[in-house]
Amino acid sequence: MSKQKKFLLTEKDIPEQWYNIQADMPNPMLPPLHPGTKQPLGPDDLAPLFPMELIKQEVSTERWIDIPDEVRDAYKMWRCTPLFRATNLEKMLDTPAKIYYKYEGLSPSGSHKPNTSIPQVYYNMKEGVTKLTTETGAGQWGSALAFATQYFGLKCEVFMVKISYNQKPYRKLLMNLWGADVYASPTDITEAGRGILKLNPDTPGSLGIAISEAVERAVMDEHTKYSLGSVLNHVLMHQTVIGLEAIKQLEMAGDFPDIVVAPFGGGSNFAGTAFPFLRYNLQEGKKVRCIAAEPASCPKLTKGQFRYDFGDSVGMTPLLPMFTLGHNFVPAPIHAGGLRYHGAGAIVSQLLKDKLIEAQAIQQLECFDAGVKFARAEGIVPAPEATHGLAVVFREALKAKEEGTSKTILFNLCGHGHFDMTAYQDYFAGKLHDHHLTDEQLNYGLKELDKSIPIT
Amino acid sequence: MSKQKKFLLTEKDIPEQWYNIQADMPNPMLPPLHPGTKQPLGPDDLAPLFPMELIKQEVSTERWIDIPDEVRDAYKMWRCTPLFRATNLEKMLDTPAKIYYKYEGLSPSGSHKPNTSIPQVYYNMKEGVTKLTTETGAGQWGSALAFATQYFGLKCEVFMVKISYNQKPYRKLLMNLWGADVYASPTDITEAGRGILKLNPDTPGSLGIAISEAVERAVMDEHTKYSLGSVLNHVLMHQTVIGLEAIKQLEMAGDFPDIVVAPFGGGSNFAGTAFPFLRYNLQEGKKVRCIAAEPASCPKLTKGQFRYDFGDSVGMTPLLPMFTLGHNFVPAPIHAGGLRYHGAGAIVSQLLKDKLIEAQAIQQLECFDAGVKFARAEGIVPAPEATHGLAVVFREALKAKEEGTSKTILFNLCGHGHFDMTAYQDYFAGKLHDHHLTDEQLNYGLKELDKSIPIT
Repeated sequence: MSKQKKFLLTEKDIPEQWYNIQADMPNPMLPPLHPGTKQPLGPDDLAPLFPMELIKQEVSTERWIDIPDEVRDAYKMWRCTPLFRATNLEKMLDTPAKIYYKYEGLSPSGSHKPNTSIPQVYYNMKEGVTKLTTETGAGQWGSALAFATQYFGLKCEVFMVKISYNQKPYRKLLMNLWGADVYASPTDITEAGRGILKLNPDTPGSLGIAISEAVERAVMDEHTKYSLGSVLNHVLMHQTVIGLEAIKQLEMAGDFPDIVVAPFGGGSNFAGTAFPFLRYNLQEGKKVRCIAAEPASCPKLTKGQFRYDFGDSVGMTPLLPMFTLGHNFVPAPIHAGGLRYHGAGAIVSQLLKDKLIEAQAIQQLECFDAGVKFARAEGIVPAPEATHGLAVVFREALKAKEEGTSKTILFNLCGHGHFDMTAYQDYFAGKLHDHHLTDEQLNYGLKELDKSIPIT
Repeated sequence: MSKQKKFLLTEKDIPEQWYNIQADMPNPMLPPLHPGTKQPLGPDDLAPLFPMELIKQEVSTERWIDIPDEVRDAYKMWRCTPLFRATNLEKMLDTPAKIYYKYEGLSPSGSHKPNTSIPQVYYNMKEGVTKLTTETGAGQWGSALAFATQYFGLKCEVFMVKISYNQKPYRKLLMNLWGADVYASPTDITEAGRGILKLNPDTPGSLGIAISEAVERAVMDEHTKYSLGSVLNHVLMHQTVIGLEAIKQLEMAGDFPDIVVAPFGGGSNFAGTAFPFLRYNLQEGKKVRCIAAEPASCPKLTKGQFRYDFGDSVGMTPLLPMFTLGHNFVPAPIHAGGLRYHGAGAIVSQLLKDKLIEAQAIQQLECFDAGVKFARAEGIVPAPEATHGLAVVFREALKAKEEGTSKTILFNLCGHGHFDMTAYQDYFAGKLHDHHLTDEQLNYGLKELDKSIPIT
């Protein structure tokens, strides 16, 4: 028998606390601003959208936040998730690098997203909320929220970006199976949607537009609130169960990573994987390289500006300090729908500005090439979003080979691609291509940014 | 925190031997007969189709057969699989029964099938075979073989039953991803296929027809052999890793089942789950009820005859002693494509004849109702095949409630339904219905059986 492949934890090892990196950041993130007054937000400003417990978590600087028993109990359905040594892939790439991947695709909806949908719905339920609205790209987040609302007995309304709604019919069916109402966004049931459709009836939609619609529906009804699957601090924090488990599992393997890689949409997967390792850099002076992998067609980290911007397209949300392509940026309809977001979460943006993390932008074809090779070597078909991280792993593993150094790489395989098989079909049929953004395209959203808002 | 939900084994616990029930059967199975001479088959008769090591396993009466290291090494990609206590489902059904499920959907192709595709391809590779042909219904078996041939570097050709080819495009894509050529059966590239198409150009196809085509292609070339995903003794035996692991896991839970349930197509899932428990009945006088769950539209166990019959539609295979609906029986195009087979494996048939196991036939709507409830309670979307077993679990759990007795039920959830979401869509849209077979339909295939072949 060859090397050990799987490192398993039992449900007793499910973390009892989330890690809040706000306690350890050398420069704290800038405060979100009220979109009208442009003054820092207070908790009350967020109350129409979120339950108070999540608002508290959003601004907390406590290092550790307790995970409620009911949430840990729900986590038991799929956590702890396995850590794999990618022995077959290492052999295929003929690399001296040791490659580990944490696999989050075993959750009910098939990605890391239920790590936060479960606590979000739980806290909403405890505060008497009966319905949640949200947006979704490829459907990973929408299906995770549909599952969680079903689990705790709440209603759910999902605005799914139109291009993904059409590309990924199976994920819509999954949301329906769990009782959610799903709309192709932009819709004509919101003012925001009607406005966009009037300007551009053929728009493929975007996460920013879908957020506008979901937020509008939430503020209309006092027992309805809004739920976001990434970007915000509390969402990123809920995902830290991934990295916290991975630390234990790498200990079992007698290893510690030189490089941690995760795909990047709004930041939740990246943060959940990397922040618990970043803590070692911040507290103990370790030098783990944490690399966010973003699509070249939506390169906010590598080509965006660090400015205050809206989270949605219409401009209904608070202004957040983030690396952004501008809230009007509509990315190309790539298959990695979950990464088609114009901005990065505020914490991650601050860390990038402070050069505490890295970012790489990858073209679609390089991603799918890595995804196919991974599926052949390791037997798991990765979601298109996940292939972005894989492409960076391939780059780093081949670099290690060229340099003749043995690096230890940890990668978070955030979800399976079972509902994305048409993407692979298109890839094999030669229908996919890379997207090279012109300066004009890049500036389209950026020129709209309100330069009057100070940022340092 | 509530009850323990998951019982995990490490890869060190992957069984080192398969369990061969032929060592313990009170009445051995009758021998397969040569289709021409109607005399018992010798190993040489099977040599054009199978490698010698599998032929040896087919007739072996050794109780334990060693699993090669290379096979155990490949098993590590997904084994050991978890055993779950269905705590949420128990609560939903308000039953005193304890329900456990072994989950085989975590394998590369999403079902229990790689448990045998991996060793089958391994033994073929060792004997110099370079290509395998096979049939598949819903695609669970075809994708499992595609994965295994990819893993060991062989070519693969899959004849996929036409109705499933059209219903399940994503599973076809999965086979393509792993390098297999996939045809909608019946095709015009085989004599068998052309003959069927001439008689009935609009046939939805059947597993029996697809087997004829795959066998025909295999015997044409000396480096090509044929691989079967169920029915045969060696296939059933490879699946016993399921039950062997489950015994250890139930020990961890401090439990032992009163009832073991698995869906039934040709018998491999049922055998793999039940035989290791049946051993306790045969050797130690325990009384575990082992229940095979078959579709009411293809009820060979509950309404078939125990006779010698062909494994395929055209009559190219050896004659096997089995419960059968006749090799010409074409079942209704239900979504559980993997269960649309006219006959039961010879060992399972002998055990049923000897009343050592039970069978229940279930209608499609009852199955999907159970599948949806399970997906809502436990967070896993079951394959349509798997919902047949679930329906029996629901029946037994509710009976336990009526009787006020606490039964321990073990169920094998043989695969996820991620590639079967259109089945759920059809179910929710009210497009599915039950299939009540007329006597004429039941007798259509049976009347073709050669009554001259003696059977006791």
